[in-house]
Amino acid sequence: MSQESDIPRPEARNPRGFADRRARDLAAERKILAAVSAVYERYGFEALDTGAFEYADALGKFLPDADRPNEGVFALQDDDEQWMALRYDLTAPLARFAAQNWETLPKPFRRYAFGSVWRNEKPGPGRFREFTQCDADTVGSARPEADAEIIAMAAEGLQAAGLPAGTAVLKINNRKLLNGLLATAGVSAEGQKLAVLRAVDKLDRLGPDGVRLLLGEGRKDESGAFTKGAGLSAAAAEAVLAFTAAGGGNDRSQTLARIAEVIGGSAEGDAGLAELAAIDAALTSLGVGQDQAMFDPAVVRGLEYYTGAVFEAELLLPTVDEKGQTVRFGSVGGGGRYDDLIARFTGQPVPATGFSFGVSRLAAALRAAGRDLGAEARGPVVIIAFSQDDMAHYFAAAGELRAAGVAAEVYLGASGMKAQMKYADRRLSPAAVILGGDEIAAGQVTIKDLDLGRALAAGVKDNSQWREERPGQMTVPRAELAPTIRKILGL
Amino acid sequence: MSQESDIPRPEARNPRGFADRRARDLAAERKILAAVSAVYERYGFEALDTGAFEYADALGKFLPDADRPNEGVFALQDDDEQWMALRYDLTAPLARFAAQNWETLPKPFRRYAFGSVWRNEKPGPGRFREFTQCDADTVGSARPEADAEIIAMAAEGLQAAGLPAGTAVLKINNRKLLNGLLATAGVSAEGQKLAVLRAVDKLDRLGPDGVRLLLGEGRKDESGAFTKGAGLSAAAAEAVLAFTAAGGGNDRSQTLARIAEVIGGSAEGDAGLAELAAIDAALTSLGVGQDQAMFDPAVVRGLEYYTGAVFEAELLLPTVDEKGQTVRFGSVGGGGRYDDLIARFTGQPVPATGFSFGVSRLAAALRAAGRDLGAEARGPVVIIAFSQDDMAHYFAAAGELRAAGVAAEVYLGASGMKAQMKYADRRLSPAAVILGGDEIAAGQVTIKDLDLGRALAAGVKDNSQWREERPGQMTVPRAELAPTIRKILGL
Repeated sequence: MSQESDIPRPEARNPRGFADRRARDLAAERKILAAVSAVYERYGFEALDTGAFEYADALGKFLPDADRPNEGVFALQDDDEQWMALRYDLTAPLARFAAQNWETLPKPFRRYAFGSVWRNEKPGPGRFREFTQCDADTVGSARPEADAEIIAMAAEGLQAAGLPAGTAVLKINNRKLLNGLLATAGVSAEGQKLAVLRAVDKLDRLGPDGVRLLLGEGRKDESGAFTKGAGLSAAAAEAVLAFTAAGGGNDRSQTLARIAEVIGGSAEGDAGLAELAAIDAALTSLGVGQDQAMFDPAVVRGLEYYTGAVFEAELLLPTVDEKGQTVRFGSVGGGGRYDDLIARFTGQPVPATGFSFGVSRLAAALRAAGRDLGAEARGPVVIIAFSQDDMAHYFAAAGELRAAGVAAEVYLGASGMKAQMKYADRRLSPAAVILGGDEIAAGQVTIKDLDLGRALAAGVKDNSQWREERPGQMTVPRAELAPTIRKILGL
Repeated sequence: MSQESDIPRPEARNPRGFADRRARDLAAERKILAAVSAVYERYGFEALDTGAFEYADALGKFLPDADRPNEGVFALQDDDEQWMALRYDLTAPLARFAAQNWETLPKPFRRYAFGSVWRNEKPGPGRFREFTQCDADTVGSARPEADAEIIAMAAEGLQAAGLPAGTAVLKINNRKLLNGLLATAGVSAEGQKLAVLRAVDKLDRLGPDGVRLLLGEGRKDESGAFTKGAGLSAAAAEAVLAFTAAGGGNDRSQTLARIAEVIGGSAEGDAGLAELAAIDAALTSLGVGQDQAMFDPAVVRGLEYYTGAVFEAELLLPTVDEKGQTVRFGSVGGGGRYDDLIARFTGQPVPATGFSFGVSRLAAALRAAGRDLGAEARGPVVIIAFSQDDMAHYFAAAGELRAAGVAAEVYLGASGMKAQMKYADRRLSPAAVILGGDEIAAGQVTIKDLDLGRALAAGVKDNSQWREERPGQMTVPRAELAPTIRKILGL
């Protein structure tokens, strides 16, 4: 490493929108990934991992247009002049993989995947340019039961991640319902249909009155800016609003009956209803209740991508933002049926359906709901180092603790006793082990219960009783080291 | 998704040097990562994950020089004109992180990390541009015991990954030994010292005679190309060769005594010997024997980077290449002490030491040695789908199996019985479940033991006996489904 003084020293900083994550956050994410992966494997989905890069034309959505493309992806030119980009989701690489290997794959092909995705967007507080997704998709089945299974897995995945029925819910819709309704109302232009979807997508924010304006001529917002509407007739706009309000209730079949009433008869609408009825039946035989998965015609979930059923996972627990205010957290994942994505490569439509969890977002949701999966993360037992001459004693003690399944380390810095205790405290160590010359000579060991110290500092209520049971410091025979520490740890 | 016919269809292919990895390979890598992580956590190392990108000046080694930098890294310019590059290892991001957060970190700072690293090099068979590393480092301790602990963790990590003592070994050297020897021989120029290291690094390939030439005037290879030598005197070259041959034996202290004899006396050499003696003592108190970690003066491990102890993990099991020939697999990881890396940012030297496993390489080593960690990967039980009307029965059976801890799925394609059996076979399903109309009416279920079929096809020796115990197909009461499948699976 060159150290000439004329080379300026770089500033140690990480690029904007890329986070360093410490043990606690990582523990939460890893627990979610392990739990959700186990569910997906139990459903017969196999693991797949594609590389970080795809050729830009295979990603499709964001083609590089100039010498330095920057439209939403991180792209660069390979030495053979081909443009590559980091994946922005896990679905586009799946479509490429499935098209590339279609002949030799077992069909339907069912895979799950997790990993980083990258988006070259403006970073901000809580908005990162790299985050973790976890997806499951079935490629090659047009059956609504394939959708139902994805929904059941997502519901079970939420539960495994710490969000059982009542704390989160899957909301299900089908693109064909609104298309059927609009066909009945005489609307068939793609642009107008998109404008309707866009308006419905704003229901949460603007309410029915605002959306009514956007479905009609348009809407002026508080700043005076005008958004052109979808141009529906008043009757058609009311029909759309009645449709979006047909969700909820205590029973999926009843919701379907209400939806059937408001969308009127049309081939596409009826097809959508039949698919949802089959999804309902499969969910019921899989034991997925209304409290885990419900129909909600107000769910839009993206615009051009999906061709049939769409799903959204929503947190129901009250969450609190940084200012201590209760906020609606919203979506922690979503998906749906996309039957055209693989046709981009092969020309042959291949039916596909899938679901994607935003893992970092799910971890944030659990944290905001006070269910921090990383909360119990704590540091190793620290063995205080007094003298170079006694290193063998310290290492032997550390080895014994590790063999007993306890994380442990010998302090290897150059500081004295006080700094070492402070170090143990910052590592959130449950205990410090003191093997001074006296202890060693007497065949004993002194153990400081640091959990107790932290509990007292945090003002635990019944601390007098606890203190009786758990003295802050104890000297025990050396052979009692591991059992005593395991007791402190509750093992 | 636009499907106009004038848009050309992209070819489905992945960028050169980026692999798609299926369940079996992933299972092997994940088992290694979980096993090694558990060891590192037990030693008190905390998890850290930095982002994929670093600013190019922070990475340091490969500064972008032109508009399109391509020197070994994947680099691109952010929208604020700063150059970013994907990390090429996990040590450079650690150095940046430690420098950035030094004031608030517990010291020594001990972290482990795993994840993808990217190198923009020419891909080839078995040479990828993205691969997985798993590192552990201690930053802020100059003690040789910190090196010893890293070595002990690496040895225990190898064992946890499936390579116990006797199948792999850690080889340890110290830069200061050769430096001391060269100082005694009057060699002090950095360039000449590097040339000596480079020559020693070729011992495996060229043997002592080839290296002797490279230590002296130079060497002409088979093609006639001449490599200039380090220019040592004949006596100095012999001293270096004697030094590199001083390893091995049955006891680390004896090896140290032999090394002491051949390097002669010098301040730096003595310092290196003292460090290795302290490492030996700590390894012994940690229970790490000569069969797990030995001293070997022939280990070079990189050139400019390391400042003291260096380590290399080597597979000892015989391995077989694609042509069926026995080959020396070589290194599966390495590391050492690097005391200058953080000084790049802060100007203050910070002692550090660490070890990095090439996880994909470790998985390949285990595979080449016939210890495939993914070998037992098998697919889900497949429930054959005969009729849409009986879907509820199929899903209920799948749900029961999953609840019993068995991966299971209902076939959701559109093909008939024969294709479904073929699908189950390709998924490596242990069993297929047949719930036809007759079975359902009789309250029964038919189970086909597909493991048995595969065993017969593979020509299992004692198949007559096995066949008696395991009939290929059996019809049992419906309530016996899960217990029967669990028996087939050996659960």
